Amino acid sequence: MFLARNPQLNSNGELHHLLSTEGLPREILTQILDTAASFTGVTQREVKKVPLLRGKAIFNLFFEASTRTRTTFEIAAKRLSADVINLAINVSSQSKGESVLDTVANLSAMQADMFIVRHSESGAPHLIARHVSPEIHVINAGDGRHAHPTQGLLDMYTIRHYKKDFTKLVVAIVGDVLHSRVARSQIHALTTLGVPEVRVIGPKTLLPSHVDKLGVHVYHDISKGLKDVDVVMTLRLQNERMQGSFLPSPQEFFKLYGLNAEKLALAKPDAIVLHPGPMNRGVEIDSTVADGRQSVILPQVTFGIAIRMAVMSILAGN
Amino acid sequence: MFLARNPQLNSNGELHHLLSTEGLPREILTQILDTAASFTGVTQREVKKVPLLRGKAIFNLFFEASTRTRTTFEIAAKRLSADVINLAINVSSQSKGESVLDTVANLSAMQADMFIVRHSESGAPHLIARHVSPEIHVINAGDGRHAHPTQGLLDMYTIRHYKKDFTKLVVAIVGDVLHSRVARSQIHALTTLGVPEVRVIGPKTLLPSHVDKLGVHVYHDISKGLKDVDVVMTLRLQNERMQGSFLPSPQEFFKLYGLNAEKLALAKPDAIVLHPGPMNRGVEIDSTVADGRQSVILPQVTFGIAIRMAVMSILAGN
Amino acid sequence: MFLARNPQLNSNGELHHLLSTEGLPREILTQILDTAASFTGVTQREVKKVPLLRGKAIFNLFFEASTRTRTTFEIAAKRLSADVINLAINVSSQSKGESVLDTVANLSAMQADMFIVRHSESGAPHLIARHVSPEIHVINAGDGRHAHPTQGLLDMYTIRHYKKDFTKLVVAIVGDVLHSRVARSQIHALTTLGVPEVRVIGPKTLLPSHVDKLGVHVYHDISKGLKDVDVVMTLRLQNERMQGSFLPSPQEFFKLYGLNAEKLALAKPDAIVLHPGPMNRGVEIDSTVADGRQSVILPQVTFGIAIRMAVMSILAGN
Repeated sequence: MFLARNPQLNSNGELHHLLSTEGLPREILTQILDTAASFTGVTQREVKKVPLLRGKAIFNLFFEASTRTRTTFEIAAKRLSADVINLAINVSSQSKGESVLDTVANLSAMQADMFIVRHSESGAPHLIARHVSPEIHVINAGDGRHAHPTQGLLDMYTIRHYKKDFTKLVVAIVGDVLHSRVARSQIHALTTLGVPEVRVIGPKTLLPSHVDKLGVHVYHDISKGLKDVDVVMTLRLQNERMQGSFLPSPQEFFKLYGLNAEKLALAKPDAIVLHPGPMNRGVEIDSTVADGRQSVILPQVTFGIAIRMAVMSILAGN
Repeated sequence: MFLARNPQLNSNGELHHLLSTEGLPREILTQILDTAASFTGVTQREVKKVPLLRGKAIFNLFFEASTRTRTTFEIAAKRLSADVINLAINVSSQSKGESVLDTVANLSAMQADMFIVRHSESGAPHLIARHVSPEIHVINAGDGRHAHPTQGLLDMYTIRHYKKDFTKLVVAIVGDVLHSRVARSQIHALTTLGVPEVRVIGPKTLLPSHVDKLGVHVYHDISKGLKDVDVVMTLRLQNERMQGSFLPSPQEFFKLYGLNAEKLALAKPDAIVLHPGPMNRGVEIDSTVADGRQSVILPQVTFGIAIRMAVMSILAGN
Repeated sequence: MFLARNPQLNSNGELHHLLSTEGLPREILTQILDTAASFTGVTQREVKKVPLLRGKAIFNLFFEASTRTRTTFEIAAKRLSADVINLAINVSSQSKGESVLDTVANLSAMQADMFIVRHSESGAPHLIARHVSPEIHVINAGDGRHAHPTQGLLDMYTIRHYKKDFTKLVVAIVGDVLHSRVARSQIHALTTLGVPEVRVIGPKTLLPSHVDKLGVHVYHDISKGLKDVDVVMTLRLQNERMQGSFLPSPQEFFKLYGLNAEKLALAKPDAIVLHPGPMNRGVEIDSTVADGRQSVILPQVTFGIAIRMAVMSILAGN
């Protein structure tokens, strides 16, 4: 049988690029979570820096704007003492008609060590990873509808932090799964880490047509879907990506699928609520839930720094 | 009697946020000026850095664009060895519909140490200061028409540098006081530091209606207002904020209130001239004065770095 | 005879500003190339940093957008451990009506050590250099059609790296010389470094009218111009600068002057091909050549970092 090598792993089976949670072995996911745990201490210290990546040049290549995600990577890199170069690439080179690969070849020639890539087109980070020189590492910071692996990993970290053991959990992902790269990264990670039951909940128009192939249970009725779950992962309603009539209106969506206290009461009493941010309050989540006692939305952000530090330092070490 | 605690001070009466010069005790203003004096040496050294804020994460949150002010804070923070993250917030998160407070809650969760906030709406930095976790410090870098305390403080530093003693001075503030957050911060600081006579000079349409309540003397005739003053503080004519007919034309304003050599001759021979920049030459100030021997406009900029280093290091130490 | 002092040199004849390769003595060009050679080692080390410019404040003043060039200077400065402040100046100060010289005076007052200036108008960096205080250094990062000296120098470095001796070379510059600041900087540097034969190749409409006065040989027929040359320096076709009818169409240009394998075969078998980037593939250069064995386009980028480190450290040392 022919086994295509995972483009994320080097010949020793170690992580060389982080492009997707799909296809990563459980050991590597666990290594990232464990390394992140060791970094949460750093971010609480008086001097929040370790010299692990001193002298390394890390490029934030954002072909699509994202203040939040770019900032978390920038902070993580600076806490590792790396030099960070921010490039918002719609501005200049691309407007001069240079291709993505020429841009990347040029930046590689500047002896970059790592590229953090966000792009509106699915697969762009894979394309870049295939073409960079072998000593450069690529981290996908979100590509099209495809993947957002560091978000998926910080969600796993958050779940493990509060629930300890993945193998006894029922996890529900609620909302616009169709347009969500986050949902894809969550599903692959949850499955690999041994979560026995992953549910996706949403209207037919916002679920991928063959989502059940991913090993998840599909619910269109949220009151059934949330029944007795341990973890509720809400998704941002991607207004800007929707075209045409995926849903009647944000108000209608909120009524049917927005997570409010009443719906959350169907889950287990100690269920936790996640959201990748930025939230549309009153659309996919009600403020009483977002700011309530079961919400772990802000801890997600904190853990996100540690996860990105972990991924960068693991890649740099391999 | 009920005394509302100043939101800028901690329970020990020390500076915790810098939101306004209003209501700050003279001892704290003097502490800032003295600390800044100790930093002017640093900025003239071969290596212009001290490790006071190493590992601290300082966020420039500019909801309103300002290259100059953002740059002075960035330089000040880097000279204190802090890590600086620049965020121009109209671009991304806000356009995704996230509220200011959600943005700030997220950045706090990234374990920020300090927020430098500029916002077009008065009170935004206060709002943020009320909602951040207790270990985070907020510095107002200009909010609406309300306050611009570091500008007010660097002006005080400049005056003290050249005039030594506040308690014998006559100080005139000339121009568009109505739209000027700088003027408000100057008036509060001058009064607190013991300047016995503060004058504001301008046409009725550009002075706040009850400005005399702030303890200043009001002049509409500049030739009377500048008579024998020690310090002339010119203000930028805020074209971009004016709507309708506050003044006939910039030319007319210059004729009546623009500081030229002839008008300046009415002040004391050793009077100094300040301007917060950027200047509209030929509108509020003539180039012969702006570049003349009594101008201390460029030293203001230099002292501004030391003042911002002082504020940051005092906050971080409290 | 009156000799105007070169504005780039201090009273000891050392480099104080880098504004143009024109008028620089061969010793200084060679000093820059030699210093750059010593830095190529640094950029290949595990920790790519030296503390030569620690505590120095370097301002990237980009009045014209350029992600590539700004990035190379930023990386070079960070590898020298300097603090870098990026200012894209069309955004704020200028829109508030401040002049270039007021902007620069203000930044100088912040105790800047070095300005990297890019401007769409020829001569802007000279203007700034004439007005900054004597301890500040100015590097021209491209001004109008005038000069782009660090690009010219990195090209010289590349040629020397592959060809060792300038004094036996035939070098051809192909394309839009008229609008190219790069070509001007190349011609002056090649001549000063002793290249005996420099050719420019292009249609009349894209060559300056008296280009032969610069000591170069003019060819309109590329098959004659490339005959037996050692070095082919292609130029970017400056679409954005062209107005009216300098050339019939990019397709037509490619047919006549675009460097493809067939035309390159006219040069010496070991001829090298340079391009300043970003490339218009299929316009001034064919992909088979750009990515072919004679291309040294990516090494140019790598050497560009070392050249900028060299220039900055030489200026800071003088």
